[in-house]
Order: sequence, then structure tokens, then C-alpha cells
Amino acid sequence: MKAYFTRAYTLSASHRLHTEALSAEDNRTTFGKCNNPHGHGHNYRIEVTVGGPVDPATGMVINMATLDQVVNDVVIRRFDHMNLNLDPLFTHRVSTTENLSITVFDLLASALAPAILEKIRIEETENNFFEYSGSH
Amino acid sequence: MKAYFTRAYTLSASHRLHTEALSAEDNRTTFGKCNNPHGHGHNYRIEVTVGGPVDPATGMVINMATLDQVVNDVVIRRFDHMNLNLDPLFTHRVSTTENLSITVFDLLASALAPAILEKIRIEETENNFFEYSGSH
Amino acid sequence: MKAYFTRAYTLSASHRLHTEALSAEDNRTTFGKCNNPHGHGHNYRIEVTVGGPVDPATGMVINMATLDQVVNDVVIRRFDHMNLNLDPLFTHRVSTTENLSITVFDLLASALAPAILEKIRIEETENNFFEYSGSH
Amino acid sequence: MKAYFTRAYTLSASHRLHTEALSAEDNRTTFGKCNNPHGHGHNYRIEVTVGGPVDPATGMVINMATLDQVVNDVVIRRFDHMNLNLDPLFTHRVSTTENLSITVFDLLASALAPAILEKIRIEETENNFFEYSGSH
Amino acid sequence: MKAYFTRAYTLSASHRLHTEALSAEDNRTTFGKCNNPHGHGHNYRIEVTVGGPVDPATGMVINMATLDQVVNDVVIRRFDHMNLNLDPLFTHRVSTTENLSITVFDLLASALAPAILEKIRIEETENNFFEYSGSH
Amino acid sequence: MKAYFTRAYTLSASHRLHTEALSAEDNRTTFGKCNNPHGHGHNYRIEVTVGGPVDPATGMVINMATLDQVVNDVVIRRFDHMNLNLDPLFTHRVSTTENLSITVFDLLASALAPAILEKIRIEETENNFFEYSGSH
Repeated sequence: MKAYFTRAYTLSASHRLHTEALSAEDNRTTFGKCNNPHGHGHNYRIEVTVGGPVDPATGMVINMATLDQVVNDVVIRRFDHMNLNLDPLFTHRVSTTENLSITVFDLLASALAPAILEKIRIEETENNFFEYSGSH
Repeated sequence: MKAYFTRAYTLSASHRLHTEALSAEDNRTTFGKCNNPHGHGHNYRIEVTVGGPVDPATGMVINMATLDQVVNDVVIRRFDHMNLNLDPLFTHRVSTTENLSITVFDLLASALAPAILEKIRIEETENNFFEYSGSH
Repeated sequence: MKAYFTRAYTLSASHRLHTEALSAEDNRTTFGKCNNPHGHGHNYRIEVTVGGPVDPATGMVINMATLDQVVNDVVIRRFDHMNLNLDPLFTHRVSTTENLSITVFDLLASALAPAILEKIRIEETENNFFEYSGSH
Repeated sequence: MKAYFTRAYTLSASHRLHTEALSAEDNRTTFGKCNNPHGHGHNYRIEVTVGGPVDPATGMVINMATLDQVVNDVVIRRFDHMNLNLDPLFTHRVSTTENLSITVFDLLASALAPAILEKIRIEETENNFFEYSGSH
Repeated sequence: MKAYFTRAYTLSASHRLHTEALSAEDNRTTFGKCNNPHGHGHNYRIEVTVGGPVDPATGMVINMATLDQVVNDVVIRRFDHMNLNLDPLFTHRVSTTENLSITVFDLLASALAPAILEKIRIEETENNFFEYSGSH
Repeated sequence: MKAYFTRAYTLSASHRLHTEALSAEDNRTTFGKCNNPHGHGHNYRIEVTVGGPVDPATGMVINMATLDQVVNDVVIRRFDHMNLNLDPLFTHRVSTTENLSITVFDLLASALAPAILEKIRIEETENNFFEYSGSH
């Protein structure tokens, strides 16, 4: 018997889509206005899904206070009100929301163990979202 | 060929997170302010997902009027504007939203048969939600 | 020159609509299922609007951190995860969202002075909301 | 390693639920007010989910500009501000949202190839939605 | 002392923007794709705001059950799942959401008297809305 | 007789709250993490409200296509995917959302004349919004 608990967090950050693997012109073609040199920003809504059996004593999959502490320590403090491109994890990776989803998944999967992180879903705007469930 | 239809219902209820399996102090530590003795409340948004082939004559997975009647009879009338802790199903189960999801799934799965209930998703607040798809 | 800043807060509480001014039957007729004896609950979304000139140095109507502290001290701690009917302010007032709006306005207007509280708007559900701007 | 990108589009259309496979009375019983002879309308929100590996150079599953162009050419221009029942694809299929989901999936799956269309999700109203992932 | 209660209702309808006061070409220029001959549709969200003193006995501005009955009788039954252009009130008025707002205001203001209808707000889509408060 | 039409636009931008009128330490105290030196970002939702009589021929307060063109020319192209602090209008004004609201109001009020701009409302996040109606 398995149930899933999802909790949403928000963070505001700036970034610029740009890669040294492409020429200046190809960067503009590929990333459009997201390649503007001075960067822009988003309110990211990050949904963290944890799965597992429901503890018969507490009726919970995971204690929400525990989850909040891990997510704040590992993700929110690191990226909130920051420029993503300046984080060492994005030195050699374009700061797309696809890559942010993978990065957040990898950071949380180890920090939450032995609880099972099932999925990260990030809304970049209310009409664009990204999901990643690990590389199993 | 399988398609999925999901319909959302809302109910307002009060509850208190408390279990006789724990001491008074452990109840406070585990459940925090949700253990306040006089209870509190939520507007729960319950999404019911039914799956199956699309009927070639009607173009439907399930008739919405049928679904509404079953959900109202079995779930809404039972829990809306009630105190969850006073329902016999929660006498020996903590009234967490995990357990509410499982309870609603089990009540609806049998009431909707032979239609296939795929999933119950309950939003406790707009930032916390819970999913259960049965114990297969 | 006047601008308005609004910030939304949420609280979960239980209540029961019932007044000693009416008979048991009139209570049921007037309040319907909201008169159920064991109470029910809501997630209230409370929007607090402050108005005033924009400070030329800071570019702000009011510092958000200041507002958060006042609202948490005066409103959230008092009502969140509580039974509204047990608060002394509702001993002789029905705990409708109209009266909750007036109560929250009066508590905050004095606590925020000299900043000007313009309006309280409370969403009881996403389809019902209430507004109060004081008794001027 | 697979990630998913979902982008939402909206279109407004009118339709009427009616099938020649049923008598006039059975049409009314089955479809209720959706069978009203002069039609009615909806704002449909269509979520298109594409899955695949993240390109190491661009950090993307699919370029959003490419996706927009295909969806606009194949779906939005065809159905936006139209009467669904007059489209040849609905001559012999009831214009339910189940059938609209299947229709949109089939149109986009071939137009987007070799990119992988994972799912179409259509919100008919904020409380009713439909999903289809193909007939594999 | 005045408070405001707002309740939201939804209705789905089809319409076409077209006026005999303009040539066919001017109709197309003015109304764009909303002038498509076969019509299109929307889910309209209609917010009805009633203002007045809070009744000391009931704690209410207006009884929600009373409001629901009037709005259903006068507005929802008339326009839900209908073609607006076929209603006599739109024979000589373009069925824009501006005119729908005025029409709904005028229908409800008299039906709700002596309660005071303060405002009608109609969302045509989540990004377009219209407000009307009467011709005082 | 006056009606109001509101249309929402979104733009993504980065900014940093910082003023030369304050010391480095006072900047940190006043603006908190919004003073982080590398900036951060938001998805701003900008609601533009235009008021006026409803044109008897077209049934409109203002043509939506006209409004879209002005807002795109004057506001969206200028600020979308940009760093607000680098715009000349923010050289001597802190880029708070209060000041962005006033800036957008002033830019649009003249560009939309003789149509009447009634209000600008900017959502910085879904829980914080700002309104400005001019300096009358």
C-alpha cells in the first residue's frame, strides 16, 4: 500500500539561458529573449512528491515539518533570491527549468533518504511546467 | 484504448490530529498545532479519477451525472460540514489527509464498480496534496 | 499620491454558525448545514490592504516584514488551527465570515496605526468572499 | 534519463453533445443540458506533455518555440473560436472532451514526431478534466 | 457600517460578436475571430456582490441560500448552456461581455431588491474581466 | 453609465532592491534578501483596467486588439525578460513593485489617451499585489 504526499514551495530567482557550446548567434536563435545578456527572473513553484506506506501510528507518509526543514536547507536557502547562473551546479549546465528540476531532484533524493522522493515538478509560469522522476 | 476523466468536489470539515497510540507530549511533537484540542478545519478539494474506454455511442468514459450522484451519496453527504474525528471510520485511524484519501478511495471504488476508480487526490490546502491509487 | 499594497495570509479554523438569539429550528433554517452541532472548518485566505504614499527612499508603502509580524501576532496566532467559536470575541457574535472580517479589521486597524488599513477581504472558499473597510 | 515538459494552451469553442446513434429522448437523458439544440461553449485549457532526454547542449527536452508553432498550426487555428461539431473530425464522433482529447492527441503525435507526445490533458472547466496518452 | 459579500457562479454559453450596425467587413475588423459565423463559447465566471449592514442576529449581509435561488432563477437558468445571441435581450445588443455584465446587473438589481446589488464582475477568460456597478 | 474592462498581461524580469539613499547595512535591513547583490526575479502579472461608456455599436469599452498593441509596445517590450534596474526609469527609483506600478500607470495613461486608464494592479507573487490609480 503506497500513498503520495506533495508539498509546494516557491522561490524567486534570476537566470540567463546561455551556453558556451553555441555561438552568440545560435544562443540567440535557440533561447530567444531568454538569452538577453542582463538576465530575467521567475517565481518558480516547486512541487516535491514523497511516496511510501502510511505509518499506522501517525497516519502520515512523511512528517511535513521534516520535509520542510530538508527542502529549506537544501533547496530554498540555496536558490531563493539568487542568480541561478552563479551557482556552481550551473557553471557547466544551462539554467533551464529542465536542468533545475534534475538538480533539485538529485539534491533532495539523497537528503531525504531513506524516504523516497518520487518526483519534482517545477512551474516556471502557470502555463509551463517540468517534471523529473530520477534516472531509474 | 483508455482515457481518464477527473472531476473535483469540495467539502468543508473539521478534524484534530491525535492518536491514542502516542503520549500527549508525542502527539504535540508529531502533529504540532494540528493537535490543538478544539480542532480546526479545512476546505478539502477531492479529485476523483475514473479510467476506461470511451463509449463509441456517447463519447464518454462515465456519465458525469452518475458519478456526481455516487460521490454525493457516499462521500459528500457523509463528510461535508462534519467533524471527521466523529465518523466511525476514524475512530481508530488518525484523520490525516493520507487516511482520508484511502478512506474515500475505498468507499468509492466499491460504489463505482464496475467503473474503474483510478485515483483519489485530495488538496488539503493549495500547497499540500495527497494521492492514493489503491493497494494493487 | 496614494498606492495600495495587499498581502494574503491563510489560516485554518473550525467554527459553527449558531446564535442564542434564535430557536433551534430557526438556527437550522437560517444556517443550514453550517449549524451542524459538531462544527466544520475552512481554509480562510485573508487579504490585508494597506494604503498610503510611497516612501521616496524605500519605494514602499509599508515594509512587508513589519506587516507580517503584526498580522502574525494579532491575527494568525490567535485564530489559526483554532475553533473560532471559543474565542472571546465570538462569545456574543455569530462566527460568520462577515463578522470575522470585521473582527480582523478592528484588530489590525489599531495594531497597524499610524499605517492606514484600507480593507480586509476574506475568502471562505474560492467562490465566496467578504470585504470590510471599516465604519467611516 | 527522461524529463517531461508540459505547456498549456487555451481555446474557446462552441459545441453540442448529440449523436445520431440515439433517439432524441435518449440524447436528452444522456447529455442533459449539453444537448440543448443551439449549443453552448467552453474555454478549453489544453496541456501538451512532451517527454524525452534533456539535450546536453541546450538543456531542453524540446524547444518551446517549435512546440508552439506545431500546436498553433495543427490545433489552435483549427478549433479556436469555432463550432467543434462542424469540424469533419466530429461528423461521426460526439464532441465530448474525451473525444477532443483523443483527437488532439492523434493530430499532435504525428505532427510532433520524432519528439514523443506523452499526454494530452484538457480542462473543460476548472473542476472537470480529461487525459489521454495514446493507444499503446 | 457596511460589508460586502461576493459569490461566484459559472455558466457556459456560446455567442458570436456581430452587429447589423456595421458592414460585414467592419464586423470582421472590429470583432476579429469573435465574428466567426458559427460562433464559439466561453465558461463565464460571474461574481455577484451584495452590500449592506451585517444583521446582528444572523451575522450575515444576505442569506447565501436566498442569493443562490435568485441568481439561479434569473441568470443561470436563462443563459447556462445557451446561445446568448438567441436571447431576446441580445436581439439588438451585441453579446459582448460588457453588455452581458450590464444585462446581468439589471436583471439581478430588481430581483434582489431591497437587498443592494453593488457590482457584477464577469470573467470571460482568466485574463479578461468586466465590471459594472449600475448607472447611478 | 460606465463599465470597466481589465486585461492581464505577464512579464518576467529580474531586479534588485537597493538605494543609494541608504547605507549598505540599512539596505540589507530594509530590503532583506531582496537586496542580494546578484538580483533575483519574478513573473509579474499586470492587470490594466480601462473605464468608460459602452459603445452602442460595438458593445465595447475599448477594443482589446488596440489595448494589446499599446501595452505590448509601451510596457511588455520594454520590461519583459529584462533587468528592471538597468532601465533609465529606475536609475533613481528603487525597483519595488510599488514603483513599477506607478511607472506602468504613467507610461500607459498617456499612451492610451483619450481612453481612461483607471488602475494598474501588479501581482508580484500570488500572495502580494500592488495597485495604483494615478495622482488625482
